[in-house]
Amino acid sequence: MEQIKTLPIPARGTPMTTEQAMQLAISEAYKGGPRVSPNPLVGSVVLDSKGGFLQAGHHEFYGGPHAEVNALKNLSADVLKEAHVIVTLEPCAHEGKTPSCAKMIAKLPVKKVTFGLIDPNPLVAGQGAQILKDVGIEAEVFSSADKKLEAEIKTQLEEVCEAFLWNFRQKRVFVSLKMASSLDGQVALKSGESQWITGPESREYVHYLRSCYDGILVGKGTIEFDNPSLNIRHPTIEKKNKVIVIDGEGDLLSKYSDLKLSALHEGKNIFWCVAEDLKEQIEKKISKFKNPPQMVYVKTNVGGDLNLENLLEHLYQQGLRSVMVEGGALTASSFVQHNLVNRIYMFQAPIIMGAGGSRSWTESLRIKQMKDKIHVNNPRYQTFGGDFMITGTLK
Amino acid sequence: MEQIKTLPIPARGTPMTTEQAMQLAISEAYKGGPRVSPNPLVGSVVLDSKGGFLQAGHHEFYGGPHAEVNALKNLSADVLKEAHVIVTLEPCAHEGKTPSCAKMIAKLPVKKVTFGLIDPNPLVAGQGAQILKDVGIEAEVFSSADKKLEAEIKTQLEEVCEAFLWNFRQKRVFVSLKMASSLDGQVALKSGESQWITGPESREYVHYLRSCYDGILVGKGTIEFDNPSLNIRHPTIEKKNKVIVIDGEGDLLSKYSDLKLSALHEGKNIFWCVAEDLKEQIEKKISKFKNPPQMVYVKTNVGGDLNLENLLEHLYQQGLRSVMVEGGALTASSFVQHNLVNRIYMFQAPIIMGAGGSRSWTESLRIKQMKDKIHVNNPRYQTFGGDFMITGTLK
Repeated sequence: MEQIKTLPIPARGTPMTTEQAMQLAISEAYKGGPRVSPNPLVGSVVLDSKGGFLQAGHHEFYGGPHAEVNALKNLSADVLKEAHVIVTLEPCAHEGKTPSCAKMIAKLPVKKVTFGLIDPNPLVAGQGAQILKDVGIEAEVFSSADKKLEAEIKTQLEEVCEAFLWNFRQKRVFVSLKMASSLDGQVALKSGESQWITGPESREYVHYLRSCYDGILVGKGTIEFDNPSLNIRHPTIEKKNKVIVIDGEGDLLSKYSDLKLSALHEGKNIFWCVAEDLKEQIEKKISKFKNPPQMVYVKTNVGGDLNLENLLEHLYQQGLRSVMVEGGALTASSFVQHNLVNRIYMFQAPIIMGAGGSRSWTESLRIKQMKDKIHVNNPRYQTFGGDFMITGTLK
Repeated sequence: MEQIKTLPIPARGTPMTTEQAMQLAISEAYKGGPRVSPNPLVGSVVLDSKGGFLQAGHHEFYGGPHAEVNALKNLSADVLKEAHVIVTLEPCAHEGKTPSCAKMIAKLPVKKVTFGLIDPNPLVAGQGAQILKDVGIEAEVFSSADKKLEAEIKTQLEEVCEAFLWNFRQKRVFVSLKMASSLDGQVALKSGESQWITGPESREYVHYLRSCYDGILVGKGTIEFDNPSLNIRHPTIEKKNKVIVIDGEGDLLSKYSDLKLSALHEGKNIFWCVAEDLKEQIEKKISKFKNPPQMVYVKTNVGGDLNLENLLEHLYQQGLRSVMVEGGALTASSFVQHNLVNRIYMFQAPIIMGAGGSRSWTESLRIKQMKDKIHVNNPRYQTFGGDFMITGTLK
């Protein structure tokens, strides 16, 4: 859902290997981050008959042209003779919001199509490739003689559409967790003071990340302490996002109209999660609200706290496909503890706060033995000003 | 004391700017890391009359030839005609263990010498440059038209000989702190289990870092829990190091002969720090030891713990110029709390341990307000396998 490094678009005619073209296609795909959900991020690159770069494209927004269409746009039949189309996902076989990409390519004089992943839907997997083969176009799944590079690129191909694949395979919401801490893992002083740990470059990137997810999820404590806006404030991205609040007993609803988030977001974009046995009394309460939130009534665990798995099921049913958990510490720890986090974004500032007077973002998380430690897989690092960020997957 | 990136040695004749040559000279200087103490790390690069690369050199070991001598070695007068010598520190004016570098260069047909830092000793500062000027060689302190780059390089020039400068200016031991934690800042489970948090690539680099310091310092708890060897185990570096143990009440001395470190190190290289009022009884105790450590009798604070500033003064008097504190958590926190750490090396593994059942390396450190947070200055990042390391200065 996020990319470490955007590759530059080469000059027309620049020779490229299939591996380089696929990496560029992945880099292009990420550009659709804020706009394509619930579709997958897809990128495509077209090379001429000699392997020279012609054009790149990506799926830009939901309902808009697919990546291949953008990559092939305005290229004449002459230029496309014996061309090689590289695309991160198998060209679609069926007509949906847009015409079939496989059928479109089948009409062109291209020689070969290399795609990164086979369509994850077993009912149509391979059909796009078959349409191409039927007209004599080579159609193959990406591979490389360099097996280490192939493995790296295949990981990137899964990562670029990880939310889509997770949704499709598990019928569940893709969950990311964003945390900002000091070098010693602290997220706030015990007094509650936490602004600002990370710098402006990190914070701008967080707003970009927000735009890549359907919703931002926070626990009740974060609202109480910070009264946050939870909207997207980014110099080049304008987007209305959804907000999810965990407030098991519905306490915060009595302050609802005073909260920044209720002033900034339409009620239909606010999802307020409370225990299901409170439904009757809550419904009565919010019937008087001017801009009432969407209520989500969730099963509770034995201890009385909301069952997060059930909460995510409700959000999925209500159309959310990906959420970013932004805090606080208890909420973050709970999602990790229940093994519900797909991807973590951990920002760290080059400061020391001291655990003696601060709160750690994993304060309620414990393991008994080192062998139970939780791994962040395929970790990648990036700096933002003086801060750095590590991202990777937890499952 | 450590370097993020070693620059490649260019082919002879490769054109270089003075800035590039100075950066290469800094990179060269670091190669002396394990061997030059208490001398400074110094590097040098020689360019021909057209600004083409001729040769690079560095101060390799204490008592050995200085950087300029190595950089100029085997270059004929013909080749050196109108040459430009770049060196990180002003060429020495006086004869010490080796002849004066300034006098040596003054005999050569070079045109210009650019040096990074003026000799920090005010009694001889500028004398090396004067010797050169007296024979008509241009001698100037490094500067650049690109002021941002100049500032960066000047910071690097200070950093490459930071321990030497600190020793010279403050007459105190240069202290670094090395920590290895999880992403959430934990260094051990509450059970004491901590092996291994970071991976083999990080651990090898730690052994390199050990070689760059005169001694490794640990608290009593680390010895009790881990019984560590505290020696240097590195594939290409062989070096005997010193070990400093903080054991205020001398409790651990009763187990002294059973410790790995007393079997692996000669007593003259082990510095055992206890409260000064225990001197008499301790002297009696260790008089029977076969391989007794050097005892360091330290003043105590009101609470009874050793005064770390006084401890460092004793170590300086005993000839130590730089130490790396390696733990445990309480010792690390104390050094940070008392503002005694010059440089930090923070290794983090891409794992989550959970603060609920673990120990943070700053557990005994607390600040009251965000404005009191401790800054890591000029932070740099490097990855080691899946781990990453941040280093920077605390003062």
